Parts: sequence; structure tokens; C-alpha cells
Amino acid sequence: MATIDLNSDVGESFGNWSFGDDTKIIAATSSVNVACGFHAGDPTTIRATCAAAKRTGVVIGAHPGYRDLAGFGRRFMDIEPDELTNDVVYQIGALQALARAEGALVQYVKPHGALYNTIAHHAGQAEAVVRAILCLDPSLPLMVLPGSEIQRTAQAAGLRTVVEAFADRAYNPDGTLVPRTRPGAVLKNLDAVVKQSVRLATKQEIEAIDGSVLHVEAQSICLHGDTPGAVAMADSTRRALIEAGVTIESFV
Amino acid sequence: MATIDLNSDVGESFGNWSFGDDTKIIAATSSVNVACGFHAGDPTTIRATCAAAKRTGVVIGAHPGYRDLAGFGRRFMDIEPDELTNDVVYQIGALQALARAEGALVQYVKPHGALYNTIAHHAGQAEAVVRAILCLDPSLPLMVLPGSEIQRTAQAAGLRTVVEAFADRAYNPDGTLVPRTRPGAVLKNLDAVVKQSVRLATKQEIEAIDGSVLHVEAQSICLHGDTPGAVAMADSTRRALIEAGVTIESFV
Amino acid sequence: MATIDLNSDVGESFGNWSFGDDTKIIAATSSVNVACGFHAGDPTTIRATCAAAKRTGVVIGAHPGYRDLAGFGRRFMDIEPDELTNDVVYQIGALQALARAEGALVQYVKPHGALYNTIAHHAGQAEAVVRAILCLDPSLPLMVLPGSEIQRTAQAAGLRTVVEAFADRAYNPDGTLVPRTRPGAVLKNLDAVVKQSVRLATKQEIEAIDGSVLHVEAQSICLHGDTPGAVAMADSTRRALIEAGVTIESFV
Amino acid sequence: MATIDLNSDVGESFGNWSFGDDTKIIAATSSVNVACGFHAGDPTTIRATCAAAKRTGVVIGAHPGYRDLAGFGRRFMDIEPDELTNDVVYQIGALQALARAEGALVQYVKPHGALYNTIAHHAGQAEAVVRAILCLDPSLPLMVLPGSEIQRTAQAAGLRTVVEAFADRAYNPDGTLVPRTRPGAVLKNLDAVVKQSVRLATKQEIEAIDGSVLHVEAQSICLHGDTPGAVAMADSTRRALIEAGVTIESFV
Repeated sequence: MATIDLNSDVGESFGNWSFGDDTKIIAATSSVNVACGFHAGDPTTIRATCAAAKRTGVVIGAHPGYRDLAGFGRRFMDIEPDELTNDVVYQIGALQALARAEGALVQYVKPHGALYNTIAHHAGQAEAVVRAILCLDPSLPLMVLPGSEIQRTAQAAGLRTVVEAFADRAYNPDGTLVPRTRPGAVLKNLDAVVKQSVRLATKQEIEAIDGSVLHVEAQSICLHGDTPGAVAMADSTRRALIEAGVTIESFV
Repeated sequence: MATIDLNSDVGESFGNWSFGDDTKIIAATSSVNVACGFHAGDPTTIRATCAAAKRTGVVIGAHPGYRDLAGFGRRFMDIEPDELTNDVVYQIGALQALARAEGALVQYVKPHGALYNTIAHHAGQAEAVVRAILCLDPSLPLMVLPGSEIQRTAQAAGLRTVVEAFADRAYNPDGTLVPRTRPGAVLKNLDAVVKQSVRLATKQEIEAIDGSVLHVEAQSICLHGDTPGAVAMADSTRRALIEAGVTIESFV
Repeated sequence: MATIDLNSDVGESFGNWSFGDDTKIIAATSSVNVACGFHAGDPTTIRATCAAAKRTGVVIGAHPGYRDLAGFGRRFMDIEPDELTNDVVYQIGALQALARAEGALVQYVKPHGALYNTIAHHAGQAEAVVRAILCLDPSLPLMVLPGSEIQRTAQAAGLRTVVEAFADRAYNPDGTLVPRTRPGAVLKNLDAVVKQSVRLATKQEIEAIDGSVLHVEAQSICLHGDTPGAVAMADSTRRALIEAGVTIESFV
Repeated sequence: MATIDLNSDVGESFGNWSFGDDTKIIAATSSVNVACGFHAGDPTTIRATCAAAKRTGVVIGAHPGYRDLAGFGRRFMDIEPDELTNDVVYQIGALQALARAEGALVQYVKPHGALYNTIAHHAGQAEAVVRAILCLDPSLPLMVLPGSEIQRTAQAAGLRTVVEAFADRAYNPDGTLVPRTRPGAVLKNLDAVVKQSVRLATKQEIEAIDGSVLHVEAQSICLHGDTPGAVAMADSTRRALIEAGVTIESFV
């Protein structure tokens, strides 16, 4: 019996600005990456998001990012590793407190945006993120891109890593993601996304952009919550997985 | 045998801007109010401050403020109580994580600047701060101005309150502080500050600005760390208290 | 022949967060209050908004606010008047430069949110705003609430003031706005808003909440752009005014 | 008769945090690079700095940086060129308004910190800065590192460039700066700094780190204002130049 986790980013509103339809996305997932205030997420939004996740029985993860509200954490910042460690500790701790205020727990970490992309290859920043988890709570799993620098660094440090795949991204034959700047990088067709998710969950396979077949042992599938049609895509993916006999369940 | 706590604000540097001589202030106190990032204090500064406090054996308190870096948290903000609660939870949680990273604990809460002044009389914001502590950790003591709204609100909610007095502030005959806008509000004479501190610690008395004598049961004396001569004043106060036979020790 | 200006707030997106349907609101108005970055509005949003206003032939006004992104400038801040003056100069100057980059001009000033409300009664902050305009460009008109402190202060200083009325707000018999906390403060019925606008533009009358009739000489009507149905309300108001023979034209 | 400009960064305080001894640095220079609020510099600081520069007869330049208060603009940010253009326009415009409020003008542009370093080699960001000046005021000179990408890009666009050299930095034989990470990169000896400045101003020569002699036609020498001994170094450099018969005068 196949089991898979579905994760998505939430809590990314800020003050008067709302972002995404968190209630519906939470209903479609089993784990949610909650913004921690540096790239998005004010304390009131974060707490309400934790409350909604708890009510729905969805696992809460920390989603720390660069300190860059104007750029939504999507711009690389050449921050010193020691400072990055402390920025990540600060953000996770803030989220832990707001979760605790709702009787909930933070159960994993998934870095956001440019930080996520950077630690896939940047040794200094990858180590910085690992050190943040080590000094805060070494039992927290870290969600990673397979084959990345952060995966190796985290495993070498004894952290539990959780591999994720992307429902709506095209893959190169070597298992890396097709860069967003290339045509076809993002699957926009609902059927294609659903099909990729079901094949991944049931057969641990992804068809690469050249038609070759990759073997990918992912424990989680990332659903995007911020695109038009995101909720419909998430719902359809969830339903198709259940129909295919897959149990949707967090990895924790 | 008289015992008193000496507290001061620390960790109020931000990035490239330094503020105060924390190392020396920490050496003179028994408790330090550590900035939490909203009015001052970046994560790296906060963590280094926690490390220094731990090394010196000084108790760490959370010093949350309004989200106002440009105003250093010294400007009243008419924030909704529910949002204030969450802003305070966020800040304390962030500090707790950075303290934990250094093997230290956050053991009390003292709001900063305009927030401290506001909750002395503003029922909505006072309740907001109390609710933050209640939902995070009701065992955390809250440092208060005697006779204030926040003292009453916190006690009614079952929180432990710690009364503080000010070494360098003039008092009105009714026990309130002489507003900073009045002449003589801040004692700038070293001897006067030291004398007020020793009399308070040994006799629980403060001479008001009109010469009358107030009975004040303070468990802590606040030393300012950000004025010229602050370190000298803190050192002299500490030495004079010890010479007068007073034990300097945190209230926790 | 009656003439009236229609104004609305625009440019209030920030980075990845969008806010309001500016294109449609600009099409419905004759003047737009463009956010300047302190409560909302990143430089790229601001410039694109100036470009759209210029293309549509709509007059650009500066919409400075408190430095409070998390609160969208809707929370009173007890800022020192001298600092407020400089904060307002900074914001207007930044907008002027972005407008100039599009070959456009900033032609009036309308403070935002809590700052707008505060200067209606707070002498120090009202003077601060007036001083900002005086030292920057005394020919810039200031949009004001009739009967307010800022109206008196601006006129005493020789500034041109432009009186505005609100299409969707209920008025007290003394000409002040019914506070938002009271039932009926905001007109949500499309017909009521349109009717109030047309009567104001054609007869300079507003029916107060008790049924009495106020004489209001407004040169501009404020349309809200951020509520559900805002665009429909703006469009209907514009059409009804034109049908009633009113010319919609900026006051500059 | 040799003539040289002396420039330094000023206006880099922020709210309650002060930075550098601007009054003394202004007295030692002929041009000052005034922070514009994104990496440092609140509006009140900026305006007071413009007033001091005007009083002293020193030329004001804009010193825009990345939007990164926590990092003081010293961390590379991979910002989109179009957004960078608008961020720079915003900052220069804000400074222009505050200068105008003091009857002063902004007469050149020198980017700050990581932005300065980045545009020395990064074509996209270099073009972004040039476009900002072009759309705002193409007559504004841009201060550049000789041989840099930004020098070429600015000249190709028809902007006037002003070449600067560094009084306290060691040079490689190819004319580039010895990276700060290398030993000897920053000259800390007062005599060495003074000697390098006088030789540069009188003979247009700099002795490189290997003893070879570079020919450098600099119109300005950058003095650092934020290091211990900065004021003494600036004063000594100024005096030595005057004694050597050099006229200290801005390039505008």
C-alpha cells in the first residue's frame, strides 16, 4: 500500500495583504510549510494558520526564508552562514511559540524560495541551515530536494531528511528540475500534474522531459498554492491519489 | 539581609549598528531584558547576548516591543490587542529559540519602551500582553511598574509580577514617575542615583521630588544602559549595594 | 454645469502581494492617491501606477502614510512632528522621482489611513504635514476633510486645500463621519452610494444619518478601491454622475 | 596645480542608532555620499546631513543601496534589474526632496556597499543603475571604480563618470583592489594612507602591493568614516594634501 505526503506553502499573507487560499490548501494537504515572518507571514496570520492546520489535522512545518519582504524571499542574498543560522533559529522559534499558543507543534523544516534553491548547491548556506536545526532540535526532519547539497549536508550531520518531488515541475533526465526560465518547466495542464503525482506515488517514477523514466523515492509531493487554479489542482491531485489507492499521510 | 535584582536592557544593537556596552552592563546586573527583534536586536546580536548572559550567570528576560525599528519602539502604536498578543508571542518565541541554542532559558518578560509605558494604563494592550504570556508559558514572571494597569491585569490573571523601581528617575509623591518632559525627571548625578538605589534596597524607601518618603517594595532596580556614563553608574550602584550588605540576585 | 473630481487610493500592492484592481479604478477616477512606500507600495508598483495614471490621463497625488507595512498605515503612531515632516518629505520625493521617470508629475497630497484621520484633529501632526508641503513645494494642494484641524492649519499656512466627501460613508448631522465602529457607518448598497454622490455633485448636499440635510462644498469624492464590489461601485458612480450632467475632472 | 575631491559616506545613522561622526567627516571632505534609507539613513538623519553639508559647503551625492537594513546593504542581493532601477530612482528622489527642503541639491550618485561592488562586474545590475540615472536626471555624474563594468556601461550611455581611488586600500598590479579577505588589503597605518593619497593627487600614481607603480587618474579619493581613527585619518589626509599644494574641491 503506497503512502505519500502532500505539502504546500501557507501563512504567506502579511498584514492587510492576503495571499493564497490557505483554508482550501490545508484541506488538500497532509503537511503545510508555514511562513515565519521574514519573507512573509505576520504573527496573527501565522497563528491563525497554525490553528487551521491543527483543526484539520495537518502537520505544521517551519518555512523560514531570507529577510526580504519586498522580494518575498525569492532573491538570493549572500548572507554570512553564521547570521543565516541565527535568522533561521529566530524564525523557527517564533513559529514554535505561535503554534504552541494553539496547542500545536512544529514538526519539520522546509526552507523557502531562494533559500531553498540556494542550499541545494551552496555549501556554506546549507551548513548554516543544518546548524540551525541542530542547535534548536536535532529531531526535526528537513525537507530536501533529492541529490542536493543540503541533503548530503543534513544526512552527514545526522538529521532526518524527507525527499520531496514536485507535482507540477518538469524534470531533466538527471533528476534535476528544468529551470523555470525554460519552456515547459512548469506543468500547467491539470491532467499532466495529476498523472505525474499518481505515477510518482504508486510507482516511484517520474517521466523526464526527454521521455526517459526516473526512479524517485519521494516521501512528499509539493503542491503550489499560489498559482491560478492551485486549489483545483491540489484537490484533483488528492482525489486521484486516493482513487489510486494511495494513503495521503504526513511523514512524521 | 536585603536582596535585590538589578536589571537592564541589552541586545539592542541591530546589524551594523551597535548600541550600549552590553558586556559591561551584563557584568553589573543580575537580570537582563533582551531585545527580541521588533524594536531592536537582530538574531545574531540576540544570540550573542544570550551567550554572554549565560557565561556571566545573569538571568535572561524577554524584552518585546512594538514593530518599529525606526522609532526604537519608543512611539505609541495603536495596535489591535489580538495582534499585539501575537506580536509578543512571536518575539518571545524567537528569543526562546536563540537562548536555547546557547543552552539558556528565557525566565521572565519585561515589555519595552512605549509598550511598557502604554500597558501601565491601557487596559486593552495590558490584557494583550498578559494573554501572550498565558498562552505561551503562564509560569513566566512579568516585570511591572507598581500601581499600574498591567500589574493589576497580570495579577488578576494569576501571573507572577515582579515590581521594579528606577535608580535614576524622580518620583512623584503618589509613587508615579515624574514625566521625562519635566525638569529633574532623570537623575544625572551619580551620587543621587546610588543613594536612591541603596535606600530602596535596604529600607524600601524612595524620596519623592517634594521630599516626602514613599514606601516601595521593589524586587528589582532598573539601570539604564544607553546613556553616557551608564556603565559607570551601573558599576557604582552595584558596588554601593554590596558595600551596604545587599545581595544582588535575580528574583527567579 | 457641475464639475467634480473622483479620487481613489492606488499603488498599494507590495512586492509579491497585490492589492486592489488599480487599472479599473484608475479608469473610473480623475485623480489617484498613489502609495509612497511607507504603508504600501514598492518602487516598481509605484512607477507602474504612475505610468497607468499618465496613460489614462488621471492626475497623480502623493499618498504618504506612517512607516508601518505590517499595519498598512492604519494604526495611529505617536511620532514626533519633526520626524513626521521628514517622513512625508521623503515619501513625496520618492514618488516625484518615480513619476518623473514616467514623464508625469505629482500634483497634490492626500495623507493615508491613520495619518489622514489623526491630522483631522491632532495639531502637532497636522502642522508637521503642512510643513512638509511648505518646504517641498507650497503650490501642491492638500486634500482634506472639511472642518478638520488639517484644513485650518493648511489654510492658515497659505496652502491650497481641496475638500473631499465620501461616497460610501454615513455623515453625522454636524458634518463629521459616523465612526466605522457604528452600524451603518459604511454604505454598502450600490444605489445609496450612487445617490449620495450625485446629490453631492449636483446640489452640494448630503443627507445625514438622522435625515437632516448638510450643505457640503466638496471638490472631490473619495471612492474606495479595496472593498469587494469596489470597481462596480466606482463605475456606477462615474456613469450616474455623467448621466446627471456632471463633468468628472480633477481639481488641479 | 593639482586638484582632488575627497568623498566619504555619511547619513548612515538610523533612528536611535548613530553611526560615524558625520560633522567631522563633512568638515574633512568636499563631497559626501548621503545614505538614502534602504541600507541606512532615516529621513530625519538624511535631512540633518544635507543641512550640515550645505552649511559646510560640501557637495551632496546620493548613496543608494540594496533594501537591507539588517545587512547595511553589504550583502549581494540578486534583484531583478528593473526592480533595482526603480529602487534606485525611489532612493535618489527621496534624498532630492530632503535636500531641497534644506535648499540644497543632489549633485552626483555613488552606489553603496554590495551594490557598488556588484555593478563593478554585473552587467544587468550595472545597466539598472545607469537606467535609473538616465530616467531621473542624465546630467548627474556617477562615481565609479576605474576599469569596472559600471564605468563602461555609464560611459556608453553618455553619463559623466567620476573615477575614485581609495586612500586606505591596497591595489593589485592590475589596478583592482586587493580583496578584503587578503592580509594587507586595508591600510591601517596613518602615514601609509596619507602617503598614498598625496602621491595619487600629485602624481596620479599608486604603488601596488607588489611594489609596481600604477597610473591612476582619479578625480576623487574615498575616505572611510566608519572605522576607529577614521576622523583622524581624514583630517591628516586633508592637511597633508593642502600642504602638498593640492586644492581640495568637488568635481561638480
